[in-house]
Amino acid sequence: MSHNTFGHLFRITTWGESHGPALGCVVDGCPPGLPLTEADIQYWLNRRAPGTSRFVTQRREPDEVKILSGVFEDDRTGGPLTTGTPISLLIENVDQRTKDYGDIRDLYRPGHADYVYDAKYGLRDYRGGGRSSARETAGRVAAGAVARRVLGEGLQIRAAVVQIGKIAIDRARWDWAEMENNPFWCPDAETAKRWEDLLDATRKDGNSVGAIVEVEATGVPAGWGAPVYAKLDAELAGALMSINAVKGVEIGAGFAAAELTGVENADEMRAGNDGKPIFLSNAAGGVLGGISTGQPLVARIAVKPTSSILTPRQTITRDGQNAEISTTGRHDPCVGIRAAPVAEAMVACVLADAMLRHRGQTGR
Amino acid sequence: MSHNTFGHLFRITTWGESHGPALGCVVDGCPPGLPLTEADIQYWLNRRAPGTSRFVTQRREPDEVKILSGVFEDDRTGGPLTTGTPISLLIENVDQRTKDYGDIRDLYRPGHADYVYDAKYGLRDYRGGGRSSARETAGRVAAGAVARRVLGEGLQIRAAVVQIGKIAIDRARWDWAEMENNPFWCPDAETAKRWEDLLDATRKDGNSVGAIVEVEATGVPAGWGAPVYAKLDAELAGALMSINAVKGVEIGAGFAAAELTGVENADEMRAGNDGKPIFLSNAAGGVLGGISTGQPLVARIAVKPTSSILTPRQTITRDGQNAEISTTGRHDPCVGIRAAPVAEAMVACVLADAMLRHRGQTGR
Amino acid sequence: MSHNTFGHLFRITTWGESHGPALGCVVDGCPPGLPLTEADIQYWLNRRAPGTSRFVTQRREPDEVKILSGVFEDDRTGGPLTTGTPISLLIENVDQRTKDYGDIRDLYRPGHADYVYDAKYGLRDYRGGGRSSARETAGRVAAGAVARRVLGEGLQIRAAVVQIGKIAIDRARWDWAEMENNPFWCPDAETAKRWEDLLDATRKDGNSVGAIVEVEATGVPAGWGAPVYAKLDAELAGALMSINAVKGVEIGAGFAAAELTGVENADEMRAGNDGKPIFLSNAAGGVLGGISTGQPLVARIAVKPTSSILTPRQTITRDGQNAEISTTGRHDPCVGIRAAPVAEAMVACVLADAMLRHRGQTGR
Amino acid sequence: MSHNTFGHLFRITTWGESHGPALGCVVDGCPPGLPLTEADIQYWLNRRAPGTSRFVTQRREPDEVKILSGVFEDDRTGGPLTTGTPISLLIENVDQRTKDYGDIRDLYRPGHADYVYDAKYGLRDYRGGGRSSARETAGRVAAGAVARRVLGEGLQIRAAVVQIGKIAIDRARWDWAEMENNPFWCPDAETAKRWEDLLDATRKDGNSVGAIVEVEATGVPAGWGAPVYAKLDAELAGALMSINAVKGVEIGAGFAAAELTGVENADEMRAGNDGKPIFLSNAAGGVLGGISTGQPLVARIAVKPTSSILTPRQTITRDGQNAEISTTGRHDPCVGIRAAPVAEAMVACVLADAMLRHRGQTGR
Repeated sequence: MSHNTFGHLFRITTWGESHGPALGCVVDGCPPGLPLTEADIQYWLNRRAPGTSRFVTQRREPDEVKILSGVFEDDRTGGPLTTGTPISLLIENVDQRTKDYGDIRDLYRPGHADYVYDAKYGLRDYRGGGRSSARETAGRVAAGAVARRVLGEGLQIRAAVVQIGKIAIDRARWDWAEMENNPFWCPDAETAKRWEDLLDATRKDGNSVGAIVEVEATGVPAGWGAPVYAKLDAELAGALMSINAVKGVEIGAGFAAAELTGVENADEMRAGNDGKPIFLSNAAGGVLGGISTGQPLVARIAVKPTSSILTPRQTITRDGQNAEISTTGRHDPCVGIRAAPVAEAMVACVLADAMLRHRGQTGR
Repeated sequence: MSHNTFGHLFRITTWGESHGPALGCVVDGCPPGLPLTEADIQYWLNRRAPGTSRFVTQRREPDEVKILSGVFEDDRTGGPLTTGTPISLLIENVDQRTKDYGDIRDLYRPGHADYVYDAKYGLRDYRGGGRSSARETAGRVAAGAVARRVLGEGLQIRAAVVQIGKIAIDRARWDWAEMENNPFWCPDAETAKRWEDLLDATRKDGNSVGAIVEVEATGVPAGWGAPVYAKLDAELAGALMSINAVKGVEIGAGFAAAELTGVENADEMRAGNDGKPIFLSNAAGGVLGGISTGQPLVARIAVKPTSSILTPRQTITRDGQNAEISTTGRHDPCVGIRAAPVAEAMVACVLADAMLRHRGQTGR
Repeated sequence: MSHNTFGHLFRITTWGESHGPALGCVVDGCPPGLPLTEADIQYWLNRRAPGTSRFVTQRREPDEVKILSGVFEDDRTGGPLTTGTPISLLIENVDQRTKDYGDIRDLYRPGHADYVYDAKYGLRDYRGGGRSSARETAGRVAAGAVARRVLGEGLQIRAAVVQIGKIAIDRARWDWAEMENNPFWCPDAETAKRWEDLLDATRKDGNSVGAIVEVEATGVPAGWGAPVYAKLDAELAGALMSINAVKGVEIGAGFAAAELTGVENADEMRAGNDGKPIFLSNAAGGVLGGISTGQPLVARIAVKPTSSILTPRQTITRDGQNAEISTTGRHDPCVGIRAAPVAEAMVACVLADAMLRHRGQTGR
Repeated sequence: MSHNTFGHLFRITTWGESHGPALGCVVDGCPPGLPLTEADIQYWLNRRAPGTSRFVTQRREPDEVKILSGVFEDDRTGGPLTTGTPISLLIENVDQRTKDYGDIRDLYRPGHADYVYDAKYGLRDYRGGGRSSARETAGRVAAGAVARRVLGEGLQIRAAVVQIGKIAIDRARWDWAEMENNPFWCPDAETAKRWEDLLDATRKDGNSVGAIVEVEATGVPAGWGAPVYAKLDAELAGALMSINAVKGVEIGAGFAAAELTGVENADEMRAGNDGKPIFLSNAAGGVLGGISTGQPLVARIAVKPTSSILTPRQTITRDGQNAEISTTGRHDPCVGIRAAPVAEAMVACVLADAMLRHRGQTGR
């Protein structure tokens, strides 16, 4: 987590601005000998891609990834394999519509990073939000695709949107397969319909709405992570909070744990046939003392409503004058939807790094 | 956040187990020329110290800190000053009561890190929880005291307990001064009384209860932090989630932001006399795009109930046999109370590091 | 120095293989507001470019750099300025001549990394040496150009070749300006002529020869660097030894210091008008205790002879059979020549990082 | 190599000043389950200890190490084992003779770090050189003892002094066993006798002399290290140059490689029975392309003459006045002798880190 690099052994470095010529990611420390094609990565980028429904930004980006290094193929390898050297991934920006940036250029949009970039750096690339744009997350999703290769098939990472605005799903109806049937990553078909109405109304009002996303990783063995500052949940928290618009992260019972008693919160154990514990509940969300328990890893993130809204808001100019701004253009009424594939990717990157570090220290 | 080291320019490395001879912290990268005495650090350690009320563990630890390096005094310096070299802080463990560890040794306590340490390392120092004990946080608090020196008097960091179990404070009655009048870091006198009853009952039941702690930092200038993985809120999230028993972190509106609309969530701005914005609200909690806004930084953490409880719980032995365990001994009915000074310390460390990195990159 | 990333605050990450589609560098942590164009970087790349004389590889690479992010220009900035976000630099590989890689593919070239890549990773991109090719250094030189911007005009970094094979320059004839008159970065015109003969003969013999390069940085203020592991000379040593084919690094008197007495080695001081010391010699090479003294920083590197030679050498195949190999193709008879601009670049990167870290810790 | 921390997975952080109450080291990331006692570490500290002959400083330090954390013993472990948590090592300073520091306090000793510490930090702990004292290396040697445990018995690291002043050993007489018979770590008995005379004369003259130390590691498997900035030789160079008074580092043929031709420098290979290469020479010193070849790793360091000498030298005062200084007290006539065990320790730390990182990335 230095600047734009994330991870220790499995390391990703992303770069690029919303309206520059391209953006990308360098994945360093990837184990050698893993099959990896552009199509493998493209699959995940497509799931994140804007423009796939009327509920996400209408910016049309093919987000076509190119692998520029770190993969090699000849007749002996029988397909492209990672070589252990840095994998450079490039995504060209195609749909930077020519537009007049006058407003964003001189006004600070509330809820956006405009003012703080100027305060920090003295200047900013205001086109489309520059580096603070959610387009940066394309690089993360590409890296996440590589991380999934490292983790292997036995480890599955899935994110679902579990609440939009005040409407939460009914967990009794949770069906992962349902997510492919609606544009919200919603595992509950009935709730998905209600969200459709909510988001249509929200957009009509020139407004936006927040969301909660839940990520689950199954197949994580017990023992990943470490005590103290490199706790697995601490790294997940940092990784997830680093996603644009995220304002909260919780693991397992999360904030609800504050209201639990110790008796309720204890995940009791019974002996399994293999001598490993069978946990009778998972308030811990798969992490104890910063180390994975072997149970499913469960994290939730709170995503704030899209800051770009049509409704005019009070602000100031770069020169310190009072003004009003309303953000026109192509914006998601609920940016939380697109956060789901990004959250999956960040969890994948954290786990790949944890796996390699655990193997490094313990040889297991 | 590598292993037991936290920070980039302002770096802390903690070490030590609950029942070893000592524990401590090495603070590296501290700016030179800052006045620093053992008493400066002791002040903050005393605020964290166990044994100060019947609501926290009765383990009696003086937690007396010694500065072993990094500070120098002669008649020219006019008092001990930091030299810019590593500051080694040592706290001896005094009250490791002789006891029979038979139970913890062979049984995995639910909610504790016993099982995962064995799963990761193949062995563990089970005495008092070893490295996973909350005693480790003494090192963090000592480091936080140094971080406060770096940040200076103009930057104030305070943590309050705002909820225990299901009983939340009334924010209308918030009075920071009130915190010195009760053993809960509670800013609301009336709620403090109700917590007293709650915790007495909880302990009598052989049970425990969770809590929510809120940390506020005022005086943080706009511009600290960075885009993407080194976002100030991402680093706060990682730092706070690394504290024992924390299961959730939120910034500003946090999880409530999921229910807000973009109109509600926008922190509108008016021009101040100095050309800087006056924000009309603080849903952002003082961070936008990962960079401080100049508003108060506001974070909340969810702390799970103490896992050590008298009520027997089902578990397994190290050898994979079913068993029951009830944890006797000196335990806090609400470990969240002691988390408050630790949360302050971690915020101080994050901010000191952010300050130095910002200065390094920008010269400001 | 993690994997393919170098530096702490000023960080560079390079990627790319000799015969892949492109190679590049991400420069992270650059201060904002610095003027930076592609031409600024191209200037330095051109100095490193192969194909500029018959003494360096005849591979014809334009090495045209593109800036893909991190720089912004509008009418207010009055030219492209760094924004403080990652600067992604791309150089396409143009001259990957189609060739039969059969030999390199199956044989391990002595002196090259072929065998160890296979031993480490189980496979390798053998085309042109893959990641171990000196083409990787184009990314370093590009990064060095950015580092020079950070350091400013007052700090000058120059490298000269001071020895090729057994022929060393005459230091009495040292003239920096002379370096532009010969293809060897040789500051001594007479020696340059002798090297011409030496290298023509060497090439004719199907052989190659080693060299020594000296780098000097003037204008480095006293105080950069740090005690112990972050010593300025330690970081220079690591940075310079990381350049392809380098087998030795020395600072100031270097290995000759072993033969000096303490009386000879002491750089005595006299008081300057500004209260700062005037050193009467510079055996220290500008660094004491890991911290710059304000004197010129002087480092030398030993570069081994090019390993790719026409003379056949004994080796083994990938399958463990005895074989012979002679490396045909476009190779420098003395790779040390091209190491000079790379050494400059690495010194620039080390100093830029040291400058920002010093400023971060001390505010100076 | 951040500040006072060295390493990535196997990490050491040293702290302490020459005349403070203690100094020490925190070893983090050590694999669990390794036997480790204070005696294991003390063995190596004793080899480094000052006061063992008239050729090293007469400061009498027992350098008794205490393990404060990270090791656990009960009847099940059958002896103290590392737990995988930080190992804190403490060495108390005993022999800080009361003395008048007037001279060092106000004068800058040539060749020492006095001036640059003041230039960097604005103040310094001048007692015995403070943090810049060679006493800091006790922490490194202690860490090196732990690193040896990680590397195991099959990997042997030995350092010999091969030159003092102008007198080099005769390599034909090299006998490792001979090192135990003289106080110079000299593998050549005849040369040892000549050094005795040289050093007696040097001390009598109030002078000092430099040295060259050679370190060899055998049993390093092929494949450790990495391309580019994390090259094994780059990390060795950084580690060795970070040792006090070191002015040069070379690997294998080192600076002599500059005078070799490609034909001479190529380490030819023949097929071994196991399919691995048998190298016919070792000009590479066991590293190619930054990765170990399986041959012995060979590095040499140049150590400058002790800067503390009785012969008066010109200098300036802290206030910028001309002055003279001669350093009385207990000083080694050749500090290079004591550098040998420190060099071994640094090589051990680099290799332990490389081993864990290699295992992390590749699983081997």
